Amino acid sequence: MPKRIFNFSAGPSTLPPEVLAQAARGLVNHQDLGMSVIEISHRAKPFMAVIEEAEQLLRELLDIPDNYKVLFLQGGASMQFAMIPMNLLRPDQMACYLNTGVWAKKAIKEAKLFGKIEVAYSSEGLTYNHVPAPADYQVSPGAEYLYFVSNNTIYGTQFHSFPTPHVPMVCDMSSDILSRPFDIRPFGLVFAGAQKNMGPAGVTVVIIREDLLTKTPGHLPTIFKYRTHVESASMFNTPPCFAIYVVGLVLKWLKGLGGVAAIEQINREKAALLYDTIDRLDFYRGHARRDSRSLMNVTFNLPSPELETKFVKEATALGLDGLKGHRSVGGCRASIYNAFPREGVERLVSLMEDFAARN
Amino acid sequence: MPKRIFNFSAGPSTLPPEVLAQAARGLVNHQDLGMSVIEISHRAKPFMAVIEEAEQLLRELLDIPDNYKVLFLQGGASMQFAMIPMNLLRPDQMACYLNTGVWAKKAIKEAKLFGKIEVAYSSEGLTYNHVPAPADYQVSPGAEYLYFVSNNTIYGTQFHSFPTPHVPMVCDMSSDILSRPFDIRPFGLVFAGAQKNMGPAGVTVVIIREDLLTKTPGHLPTIFKYRTHVESASMFNTPPCFAIYVVGLVLKWLKGLGGVAAIEQINREKAALLYDTIDRLDFYRGHARRDSRSLMNVTFNLPSPELETKFVKEATALGLDGLKGHRSVGGCRASIYNAFPREGVERLVSLMEDFAARN
Repeated sequence: MPKRIFNFSAGPSTLPPEVLAQAARGLVNHQDLGMSVIEISHRAKPFMAVIEEAEQLLRELLDIPDNYKVLFLQGGASMQFAMIPMNLLRPDQMACYLNTGVWAKKAIKEAKLFGKIEVAYSSEGLTYNHVPAPADYQVSPGAEYLYFVSNNTIYGTQFHSFPTPHVPMVCDMSSDILSRPFDIRPFGLVFAGAQKNMGPAGVTVVIIREDLLTKTPGHLPTIFKYRTHVESASMFNTPPCFAIYVVGLVLKWLKGLGGVAAIEQINREKAALLYDTIDRLDFYRGHARRDSRSLMNVTFNLPSPELETKFVKEATALGLDGLKGHRSVGGCRASIYNAFPREGVERLVSLMEDFAARN
Repeated sequence: MPKRIFNFSAGPSTLPPEVLAQAARGLVNHQDLGMSVIEISHRAKPFMAVIEEAEQLLRELLDIPDNYKVLFLQGGASMQFAMIPMNLLRPDQMACYLNTGVWAKKAIKEAKLFGKIEVAYSSEGLTYNHVPAPADYQVSPGAEYLYFVSNNTIYGTQFHSFPTPHVPMVCDMSSDILSRPFDIRPFGLVFAGAQKNMGPAGVTVVIIREDLLTKTPGHLPTIFKYRTHVESASMFNTPPCFAIYVVGLVLKWLKGLGGVAAIEQINREKAALLYDTIDRLDFYRGHARRDSRSLMNVTFNLPSPELETKFVKEATALGLDGLKGHRSVGGCRASIYNAFPREGVERLVSLMEDFAARN
C-alpha cells in the first residue's frame, strides 16, 4: 500500500485500505474466475452471490426484519427525493418534512410536485445549526409520512434522538447509516447513497417496509416504482455492479470490526477528540449547536476567513486533505466517517493546537 | 495478469486487460495522490479532470459537434426509456418507434405513458430476426422524433443503414456505440449504457442536441430534466465516479488503437470469422436475417437444444464463457464487442468446426 493521505472529504470519502486492496484484486480477477468483477454478467452466479451477500450483511448489521425489502438502486439520494413522493404520496395527500439543511430542502422541493407538503420545522433561519427535538414540532396525524435527514453533512448536525410520530418515518441516512445502531421498525423507508459510509458513489441503498409498496400509483414509469425493483431483486436492469461489490466488501470489513455498535464507540471517540479541542481552545467555534453535533461531520470556524484559508493550506501540506467547509457555509469541516482512521483525527487535533498557539 | 478466460457475455462484458490493470492501480492510489479514485471528492480537481477527459475523448472519437451536450447519467438505458418521453413528448404529441426487439418494446411501453406512440415497424412476429430498411416503414412528418435501437443484443441484429426521417432521431446505441463511425448530426439524442462497449455498468452516456433541451415541461422533477444535468455538467448530484473513470480509460485505449474507424475494421473481421463458419458448415443456423446481422452479437442455433447445451458446456470447459443465448430466444450468442480479442473468436471457430464434425 503506497503512502496514503488522511482524506476528510464529505463524500466520496475515505474507505478502508484493505477494502481498496481487495477490490483492486477483484477488478483484475474475481475469485480466480479469469474475469474482472466488472466483466461478469449481472445474471451469472458469481455476481448474484455478490449482491446477495451484500444484502445479507446489511440485514445482519442493521438488524433488518424480513418485512423490509433491501434495494440497490442508481441515481443517488437525489433520485429518492423524487421517487419517494412519486410512490408514497398522491396529489390530495399530505406529508411532513423537517427542513434541517440543503438536502432536506431539495427533497421538499421535489415532493411539492406530487402532494401537499407541511414543513413541520425549519432551522434554515439559523444557518441550519441544529436539528429539532421531538417536542419542537408537531406532525399532523393525517400525514402519509414524516421525512427527515438523520445527519446534515454540510452543517455538521445530527439527530441524536429520532422523531416519534404516529406515522411512518422516511429518512435520508446517506451520511450516517451504519455509524450507530438504530431500530428500523418505526421507519417506513430508509435510504442512503453509498459514498460516505458504505462504499463508492453510484449506488443507493433503499430499505422499504413491504406494506408501503402497495401505495404506488399504477401510471408511474416502471423504473420509478419501488415494487419493480423489489420484484426483480434489484435486477430490473443492469445494476451498478462494481459499486455493489465494494459495498459488500465494506460491510464485511465492518462486521469484522464488530459491527455497528463497535464502530459507534470508535466514532464517538474520534468526534470527542475534535469537539473537545474546539471547546478547550478559545480559538475555534463549532458551527453546530452542542445538542445537535454530528459524529460524522465536525464543522468549525476560525477567528477569520483568512485564518481558515491558512489553516486548510497548512493541513493539506501535512497530508490532512479535504478540510475546507462546504461553499454554502464556509469555515472548516472534518468528515470522519466509519473508515476514517483515528490517527488522522489525532493529527488534526495536533495541528489545531499548534495553529491556535501560533495565530 | 493472471490467466484470463474469453468472456462472450452480452453485458457486463469483457474489457481490455490493460484497462483493468490501470483501473486497479487507480483504485488503490490515483495518480500518486495517496487516495483511491473512488475516495476523491467529485468536485475536487483530480476527479473533474477525469470526467472532463472522458467527455473530450468521447467527443473526439465520435466527432461530436459543440451543439451536442454529453452527459454521464445513472439509471441505465431503462431510465432513458422514461426520461426521453418525459422530456421530449407531451400528451398531445406523437413519436414514432421501431419495434426491433425487447428493449425497443420496453421503451415503447414507457413512452405510451407520456404521449401518442406510433409503432412504424415491428419485427416481433418473426422473433425479431431483422431490422427494417428505410423503405420498409413511414415516419409521420408530425412525429416529435423517431426512436430506434441500433443493435439488438438478444437477436443479434443491427441497423447497417440508419433511418432517414425528416424528424430528429433518438437512438439506443447501448450495444454498438463506438464500434463504427457514424454521423451524429441527424440525431437528436443518442444514449448508451456503458457496460458493453465503454466500461462497467453504472453509467449511461447521453448525447443530446442542445435545441431539444427547451422542450422539457417545467413540472418534471429536477433530476429527470436533461437541462439539469447539462447546466451542472453531469454534477447535479454525485456522479458514478468509478464507472466514469473506467469509461475514460476505455476511450483512451480505443484512441490508442486508432479510434472508431480502426476498431470497425477489427470488428468486421471478427464477425466475418463467425458468420463464415455458420454459413460454411451445414450445422449452425444464424438467427438474424443476413442483411441485419450484427457485428457485436452473433446469434445461432445448433440442430437441437440438446446439442446447444452440450456445445455451451464444451465451450465453457475450454475457457469460452457466456455463449448461452438469451433466455427469450435460446440457442447460442457470441457477444464480440470492441474489447473482445480476435484470438477468442478464432478459438470459438475451431470449436464450432470440431463440434460440427463430431456431432
